[in-house]
Amino acid sequence: MYSDKYWEKEEIMPLKEIEELQMKRLRFTLKNAYENVPFYHRKFREAGIKPEDIKKREDMAKVPLTVKEDLRENYPFGLFAVDKKEIIRIHTSSGTSGKPKVVGYTRDDLENWINMVARCLYMVGIRDHDVFQNMVSYTFFTGGLGFHYAAERIGAMVVPSGTGQTEKQIQYMFDFGTTVIHATPSYAMHIKEVAEGMGIDPREIGLRIGCFGAEPWSDNTRKRLEDAYDIKAYDSYGLSEMNGPGVAFECEEQYGLHIWADHYFIEIIDPETLEPVSDGEKGELVLTPLTKQALPLIRYRTGDITYILDEGKCSCGRTHPRIHRILGRSDDMVVIRGINVFPSQIEDVLMRIPEVGDHFQVLITRNGSLDEITVRVEMVDEVFTGELSDFQRIQQKVQRELYKELNLRTNVELVEKGTIERFKLKSKRVIDMRDNL
Amino acid sequence: MYSDKYWEKEEIMPLKEIEELQMKRLRFTLKNAYENVPFYHRKFREAGIKPEDIKKREDMAKVPLTVKEDLRENYPFGLFAVDKKEIIRIHTSSGTSGKPKVVGYTRDDLENWINMVARCLYMVGIRDHDVFQNMVSYTFFTGGLGFHYAAERIGAMVVPSGTGQTEKQIQYMFDFGTTVIHATPSYAMHIKEVAEGMGIDPREIGLRIGCFGAEPWSDNTRKRLEDAYDIKAYDSYGLSEMNGPGVAFECEEQYGLHIWADHYFIEIIDPETLEPVSDGEKGELVLTPLTKQALPLIRYRTGDITYILDEGKCSCGRTHPRIHRILGRSDDMVVIRGINVFPSQIEDVLMRIPEVGDHFQVLITRNGSLDEITVRVEMVDEVFTGELSDFQRIQQKVQRELYKELNLRTNVELVEKGTIERFKLKSKRVIDMRDNL
Repeated sequence: MYSDKYWEKEEIMPLKEIEELQMKRLRFTLKNAYENVPFYHRKFREAGIKPEDIKKREDMAKVPLTVKEDLRENYPFGLFAVDKKEIIRIHTSSGTSGKPKVVGYTRDDLENWINMVARCLYMVGIRDHDVFQNMVSYTFFTGGLGFHYAAERIGAMVVPSGTGQTEKQIQYMFDFGTTVIHATPSYAMHIKEVAEGMGIDPREIGLRIGCFGAEPWSDNTRKRLEDAYDIKAYDSYGLSEMNGPGVAFECEEQYGLHIWADHYFIEIIDPETLEPVSDGEKGELVLTPLTKQALPLIRYRTGDITYILDEGKCSCGRTHPRIHRILGRSDDMVVIRGINVFPSQIEDVLMRIPEVGDHFQVLITRNGSLDEITVRVEMVDEVFTGELSDFQRIQQKVQRELYKELNLRTNVELVEKGTIERFKLKSKRVIDMRDNL
Repeated sequence: MYSDKYWEKEEIMPLKEIEELQMKRLRFTLKNAYENVPFYHRKFREAGIKPEDIKKREDMAKVPLTVKEDLRENYPFGLFAVDKKEIIRIHTSSGTSGKPKVVGYTRDDLENWINMVARCLYMVGIRDHDVFQNMVSYTFFTGGLGFHYAAERIGAMVVPSGTGQTEKQIQYMFDFGTTVIHATPSYAMHIKEVAEGMGIDPREIGLRIGCFGAEPWSDNTRKRLEDAYDIKAYDSYGLSEMNGPGVAFECEEQYGLHIWADHYFIEIIDPETLEPVSDGEKGELVLTPLTKQALPLIRYRTGDITYILDEGKCSCGRTHPRIHRILGRSDDMVVIRGINVFPSQIEDVLMRIPEVGDHFQVLITRNGSLDEITVRVEMVDEVFTGELSDFQRIQQKVQRELYKELNLRTNVELVEKGTIERFKLKSKRVIDMRDNL
C-alpha cells in the first residue's frame, strides 16, 4: 500500500498529470488495437484514421465506437490483441441470448485489475484485520474472483462463500466475525429477510461495511441497507469488458463514484445521436481502457447512463473524476407513451415510502394502442392490516409519488411480503409484455 | 519455473537432503503448534513431550495424533497458530453433519500451496500454451481455487467454469480449444454421457490431459477416461486440512503419486492399533505439514488408505516418495461378514468388465444376522439385448469377478444405463442400510 489512506499513489496524482498520462496511454491502446486486432485495423481504415491522428482529447470523437455485439460477433477470441499463450484467464458474460461475451487477461492485466479493486476496497476502509465475506457467484462472473483477489491482496480474511445456502452463510458471518460483505443489493435484501426469519437481527452480526454492485440501485435502497445491517453501504461499478469490478467506486463521502482515470479514458455520449454531451450532462458512459493488453476495446459503449459530477476535488483527497451512481441502462430504459423511464427512478421513489417493502416489479402491457405500466409493490408486514381504506390510502400514495417523479400515470398493485420472486444474482425488475401481444 | 521439466528445484533434491530438511522444518511446525495453539500445548503436556524431544524420525510415534473431530471441536479458529489478521483466506469442508472443518492460510501458506499445485500441473506437462478448464466447484471447496491459482501461475489460459451447465461447458471446450480439464472422475463420466447425447464424440474435443481427484477412483476407471477423451488421466490427491489439492500427484509415469516431502512429513499407521506399519505395508496416511504457518496440524489422520511404493528413484527424476493411489477411506471401509471391503476394490473389478457401464452403487443390508451386499450395476447400451440368457450370463460374470477379488458372495443387480443417480461433486456409492433396520 502507498499510505494509511491510499492503496496506490496514483489515486492522488494531480488531475493534470492524470490527463497527460491518459493521452500517453491512449496512444498505446490505439496502437495495440490497430496493429494487433484485425477488426480495429479495418474499422480505423474505414473511418480514415490512424492512431497517430488522435493528438488531443477531443480527437477521440472521430474514432468509431465499439458495442457489445462486436464482442459477440468476434466470439470467442477475435478481439484479443495478444497470443492465446499470453492469456492467463478468461471470463464470460452470458447475456440473455446468443453467444456470450468473452474477455481475456494477460498477467499484467490481472495485476492492474487486482490493484484497481484493491484501491476501491482500501478507499472505503477495508484493512487486513477485516473479515471479507464474498457473497457473489464465482466462476465465470468477474465479480467473484475480482473482489476475491483484491481483498486477499489487501490481506483481509477472505471467506469465499458465493451465493446460496443463505442460512449457513448467516451462521458463518457470526462465527467468523465477518465485518464486510460483498453482494448484489437484491441478494443483500434477501439475506436480511432470511436472517429475520431465523429470528436474527442483521444489525447484531457486527458488519461494518457492505459493497454492493452488479445491478443499479438507488440512494434510498442504500438507506435501507445501511439501516438493516448497521453498516456503511458503498456502490461498486464495473463491467467484464473493462476487467470487471473496480472501474469506479464510492469513497467514504458516498457522493459519486471515483472512476480510475489512469486506467480508463472516460466519455459521456448521447445514446441516440452518439455525439458527446456537454459537460455535466446525462448520457451513456463510453470507456476506453488505457492499460489493457489482451482486450483493448476502443470507445466501448457500456450501456450505462450517468453523468460526471463537477464538484472539484473530493474531500477524500482523490483526484480522479466522479460519476453519479448509474441511473439505468440505455437498453433498460423503457419508453412509455413517449416518456423515458428507468427502473432506478421507480426504485428510488418506492424506497423512500415507509409502507413499501424491499421488492417490486414493473409490468408493461399494451391496451389497444396505449402503453400501460403496472408497478407491483410488496408492503411491509406492519401495515398489512387488511383494512380496505388503509390499502387504498397506500395505493394512492404510491401512485401520487410515482407520478411526481415520472410524470406518468401508473397502476399500483399492492401485494403481501414474499409474493415477488427473489433473485440471488441480478434481479429482473421490468417485464415488458408489449412484444408478446 | 526451474527448468523445462521441473517447476521448482526442490522436486529433484536428493532424498537425503529432503529428509534433513523435513527434520528441520518439523521442529518449526512442532514449536509453532506447541507455542501458539493451546490445544497442542495441552496435548503435548499430557503426553509428557516437548517439541525438542523429537530428534529423529522415529520419535514422531510418541506425538499424539490429530483427528477430524479436533477441528470440529475447535470450530472455527481454535487450532489457528496465528492472529486472524495474518489469515488471508479460509476454506471450509462441510462434512455430512455438524460443524464444518475450517482451514486458514497466511500469505506464505497460500504461496506455498500455489507452488505445490503448480509443481503437479507442470509435472504432467501443462504449460502456458494450454487451455485449462477448471470444472469443479469454486467457493468453499479447495479444489476450485487451488487449481485455479496454480494453473494461472503457470500461465495457462484458465477457464473458471465450475460445475453444472454441462452442455454449455462442452461447447466452451470446443470454442476455447480446451486442452486440459480438471474434474471429479464421476463428473467427467457424466460430461462424456452428455456429450454423447449431443452427438459429440468427446475424443474430438482435442483434450490432452485430465486431472481427476476429490474421490477415490481406480486404474480401470483411468483406462475408461483415457479412452473416452483420448487423454492421459492423472490422479490428484489432497485434502483441505493439508491446504487442499497438491499434496501428491501422479507424474507422467502414472505409477504412484509423488508426495511433496519437503512440505509434508509422511507416516502410515494401522488404523486399528494406531501404530506405524512396517515399510511398504498398507495403512492410513498420517501427515504433518512442515511449512504451514496458520494451521500446523500435527500427525493428522487423513483417513485415506494407501502404502508407500518402494521402487527407488522414479524415472521422471523426482526424488520425492510415491504413494499408491488411495485405496479407500478408513471410514469408507465396510466390514461384511468379517471381511474388509473398499468401494474402490469393487470399482476396479467392475471397470474391467466390458459389459459394465460407468456407474454403480453398493447397497448393504442385514438379513437376520447376516450382512448382505448388493452391487447395482449399469450395463452399456450395446449389451442390453433384452435376452434373459444374456442377462444371466453377465450377472454371473460380474458376480464371479467380484468373488475373486473380495472373497465374498454378492448379489448383482443389472440395470439400464441412466438408472443410477449422477453426482457433479463426489459420488455417493455405498449405501449402508444396516443401521436403519
